[in-house]
Amino acid sequence: MNLTQKLTGISDYFSPKIIGEVNDVYIKLAKIKGDKVPWHTHETEDELFYIIKGELLFEIENQEPFKMKEGDLFIVKGGITHRVSSKAECHIMLIENKTTLHTGNVINDITTPIKNQK
Amino acid sequence: MNLTQKLTGISDYFSPKIIGEVNDVYIKLAKIKGDKVPWHTHETEDELFYIIKGELLFEIENQEPFKMKEGDLFIVKGGITHRVSSKAECHIMLIENKTTLHTGNVINDITTPIKNQK
Repeated sequence: MNLTQKLTGISDYFSPKIIGEVNDVYIKLAKIKGDKVPWHTHETEDELFYIIKGELLFEIENQEPFKMKEGDLFIVKGGITHRVSSKAECHIMLIENKTTLHTGNVINDITTPIKNQK
Repeated sequence: MNLTQKLTGISDYFSPKIIGEVNDVYIKLAKIKGDKVPWHTHETEDELFYIIKGELLFEIENQEPFKMKEGDLFIVKGGITHRVSSKAECHIMLIENKTTLHTGNVINDITTPIKNQK
């Protein structure tokens, strides 16, 4: 599958879609626009972000925020409090354990259960 | 990290380099040129291929070969016999379990132990 084509089928922001699985992890695509992702933590689960298009502002508690651009990859280790946002539309690939909730320990109006990410 | 920049540090073909980990899986980068990857199988482990640059010929036993291009993603499920090749240089990202050998059940002159992929 081509990721750019696959992304055309996604219209909602902050709503990850599972596009594949590698044993215990899901591969997901998402579109981000705005700052609705809350500060959150995944206790023990790492989470990979890869930028397909656009720019993503990455914030980690007690660190300088940094901007991710197309082709950039970053892995947040488990236990690290973080949030992401983007003024303009940004397209990302996520790699997460099958058990990982995209908003971690926080439930807000963008929180999407895994079953609705399929 | 930027994947294109990271790839400039890789000079050998068929020699995956681990660039990160998401719990039980490794994220790897590799350059492919030629057809040295043998037909092989990973008994139970899935393997993800993502094309960063160039084209990859993907062959699966008893199926029509297909060509992967930039931005394409394909997951080979465990137990499926496959091989990849490329006439011109091709840059890929691999996502594999930490236990996965890149040439699966086959050992040949390109086989690189996990400890040498770091």
